[in-house]
Amino acid sequence: MAQENMAREGVAREGGRRRGERRQGGGGIRQLPFQTLRNPLKPIEILAPDQVEAIHDASLDLLERVGLEVLHGESIDILARAGADVDRGTGKVRLDRGLVMEAVSHAPPVFTIHARNPAHDLEFGANHLVFTATGGPAFASDTERGRRAGNYADMCDYIRLVQSLNVLHQDGGTAVEPTDLPPETRHLDFYEATLRLTDKGWHSWGMGTACVLDGIELTRLAYGVTAEEMLQRPVMMTIINSNSPLRLDVPMGQGLVEMARHGQALVLTPFTLAGAMSPVTIGGALMQQNAEALAMVALAQLVRKGAPVVYGGFTSNVDMRTGSPAFGTPEYTKAALATGQLIRRYRLPYRSSNVNASNCVDVQSTYESAMSLWGTIMGGVNLLAHAAGWLEGGLTASFEKLIVDCEMLQLMRETFRPIATDPASLGLEAIAEVGPGGHFFGVGHTLERFESAFYTPMLSDWRNFETWSESGARTGTERAHRIWKELLAAYREPALDPARREAMAAYVARRKREIASGKALP
Amino acid sequence: MAQENMAREGVAREGGRRRGERRQGGGGIRQLPFQTLRNPLKPIEILAPDQVEAIHDASLDLLERVGLEVLHGESIDILARAGADVDRGTGKVRLDRGLVMEAVSHAPPVFTIHARNPAHDLEFGANHLVFTATGGPAFASDTERGRRAGNYADMCDYIRLVQSLNVLHQDGGTAVEPTDLPPETRHLDFYEATLRLTDKGWHSWGMGTACVLDGIELTRLAYGVTAEEMLQRPVMMTIINSNSPLRLDVPMGQGLVEMARHGQALVLTPFTLAGAMSPVTIGGALMQQNAEALAMVALAQLVRKGAPVVYGGFTSNVDMRTGSPAFGTPEYTKAALATGQLIRRYRLPYRSSNVNASNCVDVQSTYESAMSLWGTIMGGVNLLAHAAGWLEGGLTASFEKLIVDCEMLQLMRETFRPIATDPASLGLEAIAEVGPGGHFFGVGHTLERFESAFYTPMLSDWRNFETWSESGARTGTERAHRIWKELLAAYREPALDPARREAMAAYVARRKREIASGKALP
Repeated sequence: MAQENMAREGVAREGGRRRGERRQGGGGIRQLPFQTLRNPLKPIEILAPDQVEAIHDASLDLLERVGLEVLHGESIDILARAGADVDRGTGKVRLDRGLVMEAVSHAPPVFTIHARNPAHDLEFGANHLVFTATGGPAFASDTERGRRAGNYADMCDYIRLVQSLNVLHQDGGTAVEPTDLPPETRHLDFYEATLRLTDKGWHSWGMGTACVLDGIELTRLAYGVTAEEMLQRPVMMTIINSNSPLRLDVPMGQGLVEMARHGQALVLTPFTLAGAMSPVTIGGALMQQNAEALAMVALAQLVRKGAPVVYGGFTSNVDMRTGSPAFGTPEYTKAALATGQLIRRYRLPYRSSNVNASNCVDVQSTYESAMSLWGTIMGGVNLLAHAAGWLEGGLTASFEKLIVDCEMLQLMRETFRPIATDPASLGLEAIAEVGPGGHFFGVGHTLERFESAFYTPMLSDWRNFETWSESGARTGTERAHRIWKELLAAYREPALDPARREAMAAYVARRKREIASGKALP
Repeated sequence: MAQENMAREGVAREGGRRRGERRQGGGGIRQLPFQTLRNPLKPIEILAPDQVEAIHDASLDLLERVGLEVLHGESIDILARAGADVDRGTGKVRLDRGLVMEAVSHAPPVFTIHARNPAHDLEFGANHLVFTATGGPAFASDTERGRRAGNYADMCDYIRLVQSLNVLHQDGGTAVEPTDLPPETRHLDFYEATLRLTDKGWHSWGMGTACVLDGIELTRLAYGVTAEEMLQRPVMMTIINSNSPLRLDVPMGQGLVEMARHGQALVLTPFTLAGAMSPVTIGGALMQQNAEALAMVALAQLVRKGAPVVYGGFTSNVDMRTGSPAFGTPEYTKAALATGQLIRRYRLPYRSSNVNASNCVDVQSTYESAMSLWGTIMGGVNLLAHAAGWLEGGLTASFEKLIVDCEMLQLMRETFRPIATDPASLGLEAIAEVGPGGHFFGVGHTLERFESAFYTPMLSDWRNFETWSESGARTGTERAHRIWKELLAAYREPALDPARREAMAAYVARRKREIASGKALP
């Protein structure tokens, strides 16, 4: 036993002499290059096949017997025309399983979202894996300034960091809500800033017709494409949450219908917290989630066959003592694995999230995120929303958590790199050359490969205790603080045709005047 | 998007009114009960079947062509008698693949280790999963007193905590080395303290004949069993590390032979750090690990057919910049998954470890541990050594890390609990009862199940930001500090027959006198 530890000391001494201490600070932050990603690992299956069928069947029973309450008139009309049993007085819509499954069958199993920079185009579905930054938090926080209400400056800094962090494929849409701006025109400033500060893809808001149409217009101007081109080549995504249990409200219905009509991608996500908005069992929450998600997928396909959609899973549980949502729990992990099994049954792209319920960037936020990452990724997730930065159950976007999560995402990504087992890689001759009791630091087999043999971390500090102590004994969270500051200092805005930029600014100015004068829709 | 976060606030308000705030402090630490464990999940396979064969074949080539350097005379004799090609001048032993595989075939796929308390008996192999506390560190640390040289008082406190933490199945053997005691008799104090302070199973030291024989004698006295009974019912384990690459030294050879001869369990673990003691490729490190592990398993079986053995995997990589060992890396995770595939080929129990290279209990120590836990557990590990408490690449046993790790182990354990999908669990009637837009806090389906529906954490704090801030804004590491102190304050020594206790004390006193007078062996 002690052997294992004595060996550590010996190795550190030996290697330290050879390669020198790790360079600190100075020449920028080390990170992996941008790269689209496929998950080569076979998903973990936590449900037996008959359990998947039991949840599937019960969810369709639920849609037939209880149905959905739809508050959006146009959505009711669309569902009624397709043959749903509609009570216009109450908004109750009961959906036959044949109707649902026929409509769902038109959803594409894989689709592409085009970014402003074509190098950042992304595929969704199959075993593609997309990491998207957090979106939606009402607060911003960092360890220096603490927690504050979301504001425009923090939002812009967050977008700059998302652009700078290569492991992130996509912006999540308002990492921090700019609550210092007027609510009725806030979306315009958010859209304009995102489309200017990053050339990665993004998520617009989906709450209401104006939100969606303004997003489409601004994206068109930023990308320099026509409305017709956008219809063939989707460039936007938005998340639509049902109001679980079993309700679709007016703004969400509007957002769903407009996005589908324009051929832009919908991430249709019930929010089924077991014990609060869904049954207290994970099986029950999954069943209700499946009913709501399938109903929304069906509605989108009834609007436009082949509209790009993602089935969103957001099943977790509440803490039954406080009623607070719990995230990154074993229940969350299991639900993420099981959701993947259900979704593969329908051959749809799968969205889930990297979540935690901690109030600070600490061990809890980290192990809850780890439970989320492994559950979702081994569940076969395609779009990992809130992949970096989410804190405090999603109320806060943390600058340090953004960095910690990106390191964790890099670890997951590197785990996908295959192990080579060809004879040269196995290196039998190198072992023979070194011989019993020797070491491999200086042999040719090592020298030919050591530069790229192993993952190089962005955040982890592997120096020995003494060196680490002498240089300030900084925790990972403290180092994360320095990293985002260095990245922000080094940020350069991606190139954007000045004519497009001016057109966007003019659109925003015009729409602000219109909204002030009572014209809600563009 | 914002919907997901608004919902969180609504739920917290609703539930908080209903169930009240979580009780803090006072009536003890909440934790899961002691329970033996099986891992129901199918392992992740990262290697294709032909890759497993390639590593297997090359490792047997290595034993045939290069062989092992064995410095222990008796081990050489045993291998020579079995037909190995031995050069007694150099200690070089080349092993035919037929010899190796025939010997390995005698190792039991599953065996039981009996503890002082029969409720703590453990099975190793198949899908059994045992969590063992850290063993071996030279330093102890906690956030109040900092890092200090290992000492007897810290060692005893650590054993008390291992006894108190239900998720830990087994003590790891000297979580902290008592460096304040004379080295030549230190093992006696360690053994006596462990056998007295915990009634869970344990790991003795394996370095040399005296260490093993003293361990056997003291265990016999503590458990009240005869040497003959021990031979049929193993009660001890020890880890034997080969001196990678390809060497077995005298103390380790002695330990291996004595333990096997007495029918006690051996955890045979090469320490193959890629780039230092093994090739710079993970494939090469795994291949060398396989050669060394199989050679040691074969040797144990040649000593005594059917001797209980565990194949230990400890493949990680060094940081090529500093030469420091890196742990909890993607390479470690992949090696842990691949090692499981190799071991299942031989139907042997699998040992691996929960490792990290951080210098403090922070986000890094946590995400590196998470990578280790998921890699080893989804690799099908049976004995998870260093499952809790390891810090700083194994140089330090941390009191706070012990608690953080136990929370993480609890999360993994709860992930194994099956999802119920019977109609009552799915709760279609409950959803119909609640109806669209309602909530589930008060319905019968919830009230019947909420007490045991979800995992209750030991360490995580799910209170909202305001309540958490008002009560001190403590990080997870700070809360872990309070938890271990409370557990230690509440510790009670498990019952032990005073006659056995006196016999142990008398044995230790006699052996100390003998060792002082030059009699090394009991």
